[in-house]
Amino acid sequence: MSVILGPNRYGKAETRLVRVVRDGEVHHLKDINVSSSLSGEMESVHLTGSNAAVLPTDTQKNTAYAFAKKYGVDQIEDFALLLARHFVDSQPTIHHARVEIEEYGWERISGGHSFVRSGREVRTCVVHYDRDGRTSVVSGLKDLVVLNSTDSEFHGYIVDEYTTLQPTGDRILATAVAAQWRHASATGEFGKSYADVRQALLDAFAETYSLSLQQTLYAMGRRVLETRQEVCEIRFAMPNKHHFLVDLAPFGLDNDNEVFYAADRPYGLIEGGVLREDAPDAAFAWE
Amino acid sequence: MSVILGPNRYGKAETRLVRVVRDGEVHHLKDINVSSSLSGEMESVHLTGSNAAVLPTDTQKNTAYAFAKKYGVDQIEDFALLLARHFVDSQPTIHHARVEIEEYGWERISGGHSFVRSGREVRTCVVHYDRDGRTSVVSGLKDLVVLNSTDSEFHGYIVDEYTTLQPTGDRILATAVAAQWRHASATGEFGKSYADVRQALLDAFAETYSLSLQQTLYAMGRRVLETRQEVCEIRFAMPNKHHFLVDLAPFGLDNDNEVFYAADRPYGLIEGGVLREDAPDAAFAWE
Amino acid sequence: MSVILGPNRYGKAETRLVRVVRDGEVHHLKDINVSSSLSGEMESVHLTGSNAAVLPTDTQKNTAYAFAKKYGVDQIEDFALLLARHFVDSQPTIHHARVEIEEYGWERISGGHSFVRSGREVRTCVVHYDRDGRTSVVSGLKDLVVLNSTDSEFHGYIVDEYTTLQPTGDRILATAVAAQWRHASATGEFGKSYADVRQALLDAFAETYSLSLQQTLYAMGRRVLETRQEVCEIRFAMPNKHHFLVDLAPFGLDNDNEVFYAADRPYGLIEGGVLREDAPDAAFAWE
Amino acid sequence: MSVILGPNRYGKAETRLVRVVRDGEVHHLKDINVSSSLSGEMESVHLTGSNAAVLPTDTQKNTAYAFAKKYGVDQIEDFALLLARHFVDSQPTIHHARVEIEEYGWERISGGHSFVRSGREVRTCVVHYDRDGRTSVVSGLKDLVVLNSTDSEFHGYIVDEYTTLQPTGDRILATAVAAQWRHASATGEFGKSYADVRQALLDAFAETYSLSLQQTLYAMGRRVLETRQEVCEIRFAMPNKHHFLVDLAPFGLDNDNEVFYAADRPYGLIEGGVLREDAPDAAFAWE
Repeated sequence: MSVILGPNRYGKAETRLVRVVRDGEVHHLKDINVSSSLSGEMESVHLTGSNAAVLPTDTQKNTAYAFAKKYGVDQIEDFALLLARHFVDSQPTIHHARVEIEEYGWERISGGHSFVRSGREVRTCVVHYDRDGRTSVVSGLKDLVVLNSTDSEFHGYIVDEYTTLQPTGDRILATAVAAQWRHASATGEFGKSYADVRQALLDAFAETYSLSLQQTLYAMGRRVLETRQEVCEIRFAMPNKHHFLVDLAPFGLDNDNEVFYAADRPYGLIEGGVLREDAPDAAFAWE
Repeated sequence: MSVILGPNRYGKAETRLVRVVRDGEVHHLKDINVSSSLSGEMESVHLTGSNAAVLPTDTQKNTAYAFAKKYGVDQIEDFALLLARHFVDSQPTIHHARVEIEEYGWERISGGHSFVRSGREVRTCVVHYDRDGRTSVVSGLKDLVVLNSTDSEFHGYIVDEYTTLQPTGDRILATAVAAQWRHASATGEFGKSYADVRQALLDAFAETYSLSLQQTLYAMGRRVLETRQEVCEIRFAMPNKHHFLVDLAPFGLDNDNEVFYAADRPYGLIEGGVLREDAPDAAFAWE
Repeated sequence: MSVILGPNRYGKAETRLVRVVRDGEVHHLKDINVSSSLSGEMESVHLTGSNAAVLPTDTQKNTAYAFAKKYGVDQIEDFALLLARHFVDSQPTIHHARVEIEEYGWERISGGHSFVRSGREVRTCVVHYDRDGRTSVVSGLKDLVVLNSTDSEFHGYIVDEYTTLQPTGDRILATAVAAQWRHASATGEFGKSYADVRQALLDAFAETYSLSLQQTLYAMGRRVLETRQEVCEIRFAMPNKHHFLVDLAPFGLDNDNEVFYAADRPYGLIEGGVLREDAPDAAFAWE
Repeated sequence: MSVILGPNRYGKAETRLVRVVRDGEVHHLKDINVSSSLSGEMESVHLTGSNAAVLPTDTQKNTAYAFAKKYGVDQIEDFALLLARHFVDSQPTIHHARVEIEEYGWERISGGHSFVRSGREVRTCVVHYDRDGRTSVVSGLKDLVVLNSTDSEFHGYIVDEYTTLQPTGDRILATAVAAQWRHASATGEFGKSYADVRQALLDAFAETYSLSLQQTLYAMGRRVLETRQEVCEIRFAMPNKHHFLVDLAPFGLDNDNEVFYAADRPYGLIEGGVLREDAPDAAFAWE
């Protein structure tokens, strides 16, 4: 029998880093979670335990902190690229770097140095960089929970022997949007891009009269691609957070889409992507 | 040996309920989580399994849904009182009801029926009502995460043989505020009261130059009591969410309160209350 | 207006500590989570920010680690008492200590130093000690998930206008036991006691033909008090983890207690205690 | 601009299902969590909202329950295949099904119908089936937490300007194993296979003197492939659950690998696979 090493990568996950910039009395805050994964000449470490090709995960963590000081943290995509390029360009044994960052939002309370965490969506990015200089940037968000209290129907589906669901002409449609969008280029104004994509997602969700969550998903993706030229592909995972109409008839009450039970599990799960026909090859962007 | 039944209560926990009010094209949304606990003549059910005195937890759930339809859901304190009074007043075997409600905030996206969940703090309440008509109302919030990036010191503490902490004249102070405040009366404008207390908490946190998290806690409580006459007592549980300054000296870099490691565990935990000297007796309010 | 400081305490929560004892080739492992809370002369720190009476939470953490080395960690109750007494006896400003410990179980894989975590229940304790020497010890467990697939009925309950539940003569009864039991004395063989209480809880759950979860709870408490003389009181919080019979009639199938939907929320929640008639006063034991 | 639909799938996630088999007084229990995802002719539902090709997620849930009754639930791989084949074979618009199942273990307490949940690892599987009859079966487990208290070193790694980690000749090595292994065939004795793979993983973890977590990972994968002919590839994600030696020198104490701080974040994350050189093509098995 011959056994071989398959795909592999290693790194430091979830380095929690807060960067403060003091502009006189006014402070600025970045609150991020950095995960780096490296790959390359890793046969030896797996087969013999020799670490000669291994840049320790502890060093990866240190580098994130040191770079936060040296270069600051502005847009997470740029900071991720900085780290990815450093690992690959400085270490011959490291051929590929993947850096993922989450960013948590804060709003000012008052004065210059007091903040309250905005618990809404988390901004995300995943970048890749390899020793041939190939680069990919995927931006994203997760936990953006949205709900339409009407303008959603569901009917006309397949009915088989296990189907008991009744068609509806008016239901609540709710989901927690997780979206990731691929940039055509590794350079850009990622801050403005993020704000505009987020708004496009919200707008399309609100403005789409929905006959299925898939339709809503596609409309959201299409809206982003139509309004943001820098984005060439977008992918979604959207749970259908079911809100079931409660049967109040036993209590002599009608329920005209007024009282709902918000269920936990099971839930529908819709996954899908929208892309430009001429989108460049994704290579490793989605890994 | 003689064994007896001690304190007990039972109920339905975490009934997730969404109430929509349709005002023409404009919809209003209430998203709550209701938990009721009843007690009374419960010797038999424990000792013999006779359920003759038991209002099923399933019925408690149904009642929450039916009442949401019949009476609507405006302020959670009022809705909780409605339920508590119903259970006690309608069932002779139920002598006491405790109803706890969490409310999740939503903001409008656009149009009249599209919403995005505001993931910030959760609004809470706990009410009690017993067959003697005694009533208590405690409002609250949790997961209000706040941070001051300066104006916080910590020094002058006890130093014993196990103390290694160095005093600091400038640190990040961050916490996730969980606060509950007791109303002097069971009637009130709970919506306005909540908004004002929340603001008072944020203001006091932001405006307090802190020598200890205890001092900040007390200042927050004092601010609430000074500005909101309807509140007679407030209690807090505030974790000290440590942000440790990263040592960048090994990399030839200084770190003048710029780069921090946000730690998970362990964390400081400060619990304390502030009350009026003449606050009425709390009775069962905090149970 | 006169505002005063109410009850308060502070400490270090969730110090994760692993203690290894090397007995030649055979290693022994203790994996615990320590939380200490101190109170005493804390007026000044709240009102003025003076930390002169404050033993830092960082020092509390250090003490846990140092004591783990000095004294080892055998039974968590004993280790908690050691810490509690140290804080109060060594610091005049600290009048009361509460120490809570969770312990995570591990089993040997093979050889002397390889372990697999037993993810079942978590063992717990809470001890109190004050400067008058008063001491309390409460042991416990949580997340002990148990299920009877028959021998559970539910009927004979109150039926009001909001009751739709149908009585049943055979259902699944499942719960996640959280139990805490108070020792009559602060000294004892806590390891053996824990093992025996745990077994008594399992036995009573398995052997009780149940007409209500309350009855099962009481039977479990009674069994512990009958078999363990050192325990004077026990308290439970037991969610009724509903397993609903799935209606398979639309598919031409019967369902004789064979296929169930395990629901998340809402759930019943049964809380209650059992104690000896002559149990000593609990004082602060349950705080 | 031309925008197109990318890869997509939809289904019902996390259908919690408990199946009881009554063999006289002795009951048998299966506790599973089923997630199905279908794909096929889904252009219309995305672009126009027509559900004519859509088998509702609610029906997918119903089917899981009905099949549990009709066919029972023995090995999760077989049950997943049954569902996957049904969806594809019965619906012309469904070209591909992916079914994922988690199984939670229970042990008997005593008697025939009382069980306690074994909270250790979760058993998993993912199967695929398409209308060309192509089939893949991946079995797995997650949350298998293991620890070696010695026989682990880490040194000889790259040292760059950001490296501060000190080499060690003796450390704790701990991880939570998540492993998935691909079967060469879609038929097999999955129950015995699972038990043997699990044991091989534990044995290899315990018996490997480790110079890096990568080495341990590879040894575990190799052991499985060497002992289980039905497995052609295995993949791991293994966090390095750091246990840091606490510095007790300030307290005049040494710490010869006795007292550790178990850290949460950040953590190392090692991902990698091991496969037979002649393993058949994976196709969609890992999707």
